Amino acid sequence: MSRTATPQRRARIERVLSRRQKDLTLVLANIHDPHNVSAIYRSCDAFGVAEVHLYYTDTPFPVLGRKASASARKWVESVRHKTLDGLMHSLRTDGRQILAASCSATARPLADWDFTKPTAVIMGNEHRGVDKELAAHVDGELYIPMHGMIRSFNVSVAAAVILAEASRQRVLAGMYAKPGYTEEEFAAKLDIWLTR
Amino acid sequence: MSRTATPQRRARIERVLSRRQKDLTLVLANIHDPHNVSAIYRSCDAFGVAEVHLYYTDTPFPVLGRKASASARKWVESVRHKTLDGLMHSLRTDGRQILAASCSATARPLADWDFTKPTAVIMGNEHRGVDKELAAHVDGELYIPMHGMIRSFNVSVAAAVILAEASRQRVLAGMYAKPGYTEEEFAAKLDIWLTR
Repeated sequence: MSRTATPQRRARIERVLSRRQKDLTLVLANIHDPHNVSAIYRSCDAFGVAEVHLYYTDTPFPVLGRKASASARKWVESVRHKTLDGLMHSLRTDGRQILAASCSATARPLADWDFTKPTAVIMGNEHRGVDKELAAHVDGELYIPMHGMIRSFNVSVAAAVILAEASRQRVLAGMYAKPGYTEEEFAAKLDIWLTR
Repeated sequence: MSRTATPQRRARIERVLSRRQKDLTLVLANIHDPHNVSAIYRSCDAFGVAEVHLYYTDTPFPVLGRKASASARKWVESVRHKTLDGLMHSLRTDGRQILAASCSATARPLADWDFTKPTAVIMGNEHRGVDKELAAHVDGELYIPMHGMIRSFNVSVAAAVILAEASRQRVLAGMYAKPGYTEEEFAAKLDIWLTR
């Protein structure tokens, strides 16, 4: 299969893989709308998020459409978790800070956070936000400053704005120019990506 | 009607009106998807954009749903333009820089632009982007740095990321704390908003 990749495509794949931020991730927690989930995958791909974590406890994971977003799902790995312990254990690798997107009184504004640190951000359900059982385990909560009459963002817009800020900080810190994967990891992923 | 506003609602409306950025605007140019248009209105409200300009030349303005986004449309004024001259004349008030969201080779990254200046950003159609006839009149083009396999953003995500950066710069510059409207303008808008 990998023989079918043109040199241009191989170069593009190598470039994108080399820019993946393996220590920046989102958790999708019971987000139900397929448009939102699709848009979030697309933003993750664009900002170099290597993998997302799916934590669905009482909401079915939506059926996604086939267009650009489905394509983005090819390039962003998904890790499913069935238990809170499993999720938290996985997120705590490499000393990640775990943040929840939240409108609570204790949340701090987006720009206050240092996203050059290994970071996971939990995005909650469209109606309920991040569930309490999850929020109890985070290191902090973040909010996007709002100045209007409507009191909440669409969750896919919120995810994009958060990732854009993380990406802005990481560009300034030169983190897209540094290898994220070991040589072995890179070679293994390249083999897989070339067949997609 | 205005007698029906509670003191809390009146205070909220006054606060939101006082934070409106009347010199920051978007142009929606032939954006056809109602979800995208709705999400853009919601982001405009959230980031304090007072009015948007609609320039539809070959695409019908979509029928929008009734939920949060329809609500956002109440709080963000819409100005329709039928001619390019009319649009440009309107945008050129108060010496605004006019930018187009674009992936062209001459575009400069989002963070390079000074959004504390009076600014209009043109967002184009989902498939075609900003049409050439419009692009020929702008002062510059901006792009959002992307690091992934997919080569474009959803337009409502792009609009939100652009407005979030503009808002970030304006927060740092204290622009939400300074009155944007004259006292007369503020009083007139307050009268209208209290009846909504």
